[in-house]
Amino acid sequence: MATPNPVFDQEKADARRATKGFQGSDRSRAYERYLLTRVIHAMAPRQYTVELWDGFRIEPSHGSSIATVHIHSRPALTNLLRQGDVGFGDAYSTGEITVEGDLIGFLIQVYQTPEPKGIFKVVKRAQQRSPRANTQAGSRENIHHHYDIGNDFYKLWLDREMQYTCAYFAEDAMEIEAAQQAKMDHICRKLQLRHGDRVAEAGCGWGGLARHMALHYGAIVSSWNVSAEQVRYATDRAKSEGYDDRVSYVLDDYRNIKGEYDAFVSVGMLEHVGLDHYPDLGDVVDRCLTTEGRGLIHTIGRNRPRLMNAWIEKRIFPGAYPPTLGEMMDIFEPHRFSVLDVENLRLHYAKTLEAWLSRFDASHQQVTEQFDENFTRAWRLYLAGSKAAFLSGALQLFQVVFTRERNNKLAASRAHLYS
Amino acid sequence: MATPNPVFDQEKADARRATKGFQGSDRSRAYERYLLTRVIHAMAPRQYTVELWDGFRIEPSHGSSIATVHIHSRPALTNLLRQGDVGFGDAYSTGEITVEGDLIGFLIQVYQTPEPKGIFKVVKRAQQRSPRANTQAGSRENIHHHYDIGNDFYKLWLDREMQYTCAYFAEDAMEIEAAQQAKMDHICRKLQLRHGDRVAEAGCGWGGLARHMALHYGAIVSSWNVSAEQVRYATDRAKSEGYDDRVSYVLDDYRNIKGEYDAFVSVGMLEHVGLDHYPDLGDVVDRCLTTEGRGLIHTIGRNRPRLMNAWIEKRIFPGAYPPTLGEMMDIFEPHRFSVLDVENLRLHYAKTLEAWLSRFDASHQQVTEQFDENFTRAWRLYLAGSKAAFLSGALQLFQVVFTRERNNKLAASRAHLYS
Repeated sequence: MATPNPVFDQEKADARRATKGFQGSDRSRAYERYLLTRVIHAMAPRQYTVELWDGFRIEPSHGSSIATVHIHSRPALTNLLRQGDVGFGDAYSTGEITVEGDLIGFLIQVYQTPEPKGIFKVVKRAQQRSPRANTQAGSRENIHHHYDIGNDFYKLWLDREMQYTCAYFAEDAMEIEAAQQAKMDHICRKLQLRHGDRVAEAGCGWGGLARHMALHYGAIVSSWNVSAEQVRYATDRAKSEGYDDRVSYVLDDYRNIKGEYDAFVSVGMLEHVGLDHYPDLGDVVDRCLTTEGRGLIHTIGRNRPRLMNAWIEKRIFPGAYPPTLGEMMDIFEPHRFSVLDVENLRLHYAKTLEAWLSRFDASHQQVTEQFDENFTRAWRLYLAGSKAAFLSGALQLFQVVFTRERNNKLAASRAHLYS
Repeated sequence: MATPNPVFDQEKADARRATKGFQGSDRSRAYERYLLTRVIHAMAPRQYTVELWDGFRIEPSHGSSIATVHIHSRPALTNLLRQGDVGFGDAYSTGEITVEGDLIGFLIQVYQTPEPKGIFKVVKRAQQRSPRANTQAGSRENIHHHYDIGNDFYKLWLDREMQYTCAYFAEDAMEIEAAQQAKMDHICRKLQLRHGDRVAEAGCGWGGLARHMALHYGAIVSSWNVSAEQVRYATDRAKSEGYDDRVSYVLDDYRNIKGEYDAFVSVGMLEHVGLDHYPDLGDVVDRCLTTEGRGLIHTIGRNRPRLMNAWIEKRIFPGAYPPTLGEMMDIFEPHRFSVLDVENLRLHYAKTLEAWLSRFDASHQQVTEQFDENFTRAWRLYLAGSKAAFLSGALQLFQVVFTRERNNKLAASRAHLYS
């Protein structure tokens, strides 16, 4: 198993706890209160309270307070002021910052903060992190950081098909298990998958979609992934369940995809590809797709170009970047791929995260035993923050269907997705 | 009524006919044959024949010939070599170039010509036309050129609701009348139109969609258009049919749209807006859309940035430009509008044009009486060329649904479009 992440220096955190600051006997200083007040006021309108270890409080800018952010130590405050999101996330993980009340409501308000102006813009820019490089070696490292922390951990809170991407709640009352099945069916229908179709999948997670395509649509699937843990899980399952003649999982980079395919699919990988490599991905698709082949890319996205939240990029998803639709065109335009259909499933991801979060909370004890409290707090913040990001519109979920420019064998309408 | 267009100098054309070249008694020269052969060979693969007035022929590069392009005069050849598409279109209009056999098949092959290289790239670039300016005065002039040539003319070959945009063949066997109704319903459903909703329409043609929204969905519609002929027709009809309390047609530029609306719609106008003005259009939408408002833009587009065919831009649609999806983001990104749905209806436009073309051909005699043979030939080339462009993938048809980033009152899925 890989090193648990996010990685914290537990000794340092313990040392901080032992300082007077954390004990509350040392009063906050005037310049600290001044700076914090300026930062928090710039985030108005807000309906939450901020409270320091010595009782100093910043009240909501209007209405009643839905949450209180407790900053328990001077180092936590200093890091928050210096490093913004990274400082907040790290201090939340060590317990030096806690949120009492409606965590997700608070995070939504943070995501809805107006774009910073003046000095805050300069500071924000300095705090942002460019995604780490996604060369083949870099991608391997980046993916290892997140996906190789243990299949047992993900089993605790994902569905039984281990779908770690946005589900599709075709009907409002669906449970997560059914919604993940519906997502896979929705994708297969969008790809007009037929018995015997050869499919190339770039980034297959624990292999659920490939499995689904083979078992329910009779497809022959080759799936690429650089996460050793995931490929091992998927391959073992294919062998023991007896469909390894129809699905092969390849531990390699998407840039090395070989062969000819009737469909290309990539669900939740583009976030890890990196803008610089979008043309490479387009080249891969162009190389492997037949004349009448269909493609689908499913990715988290943005309405306007903006880097990933710096804490998430640093601690959770190194190298990640959610693109705008416009940025995605670097995949399609060079080969004149024709975009046939774009669907935005933003609120479906909020519902997915709600389900994950409630299962994660139910497994709190086990996660903490597998790792530690810091890890559990960090992951909880990441899941809650992601839900808030989708609810607030800071993140989108795009499913893009495309084909070659000259392919005239198109579905007459999209009605077949809903029959 | 405006000057008929495309505008040709009939005297000049008659003079050409009187030259020996047109009569065929003057033989083509070695350098003319050399240049033409180079140009035509660069367009391979092709299954058509080219023949000069003196019988000189260039055979297909492979297979049997589906059409013969007859170049009847030296001036036509010179203009074709010099001006490319403009030379071809003008000579086709005067009858100095004719196409025997499968015109649309020939045009598809022209559209599928590989991108020119080397000297041909330089020549092609010189032959291209940047779209004319779309300032408010410019737009008025550009729109007048096309849409004010007489409502009686358009009545001859459009459907009874005068829909001059891509229809939606919800079922394969639909006739054009039903498919235009289906298009309007599809748009209303995509906009989740409800009784009493206020709608702003930018570019309303002869007012059909506004009429449909008011009569079938109970909407209150304000429609902007700079074509005086169209606004007159639409207003007269609203008055005589008695729904002018619910629909108002405004003879003004979309940049002057005022008021607050639950929905914004624009069908077939973006082609005339011009890339430079996309942010203006975004500003208009941002100014007039409510918090939970929905928007839809329906436009001809491209898979990769490319100017409009030069002859169409010069003779038929001054100022026109079909954008890529990426280019359209200049409307949405500055205000962080969230793209919810993109549907590509390319082949529906090919079917629409097929229907128009067959009605146009049935009205050949009347069109020629209203204008002249040159006009009829030019419009036939424009309609046939457009059909070929959609069939070949040179043109796309995008319907883009969007809303504000923070609007969470979204349809749970798109199933309601198909129920």
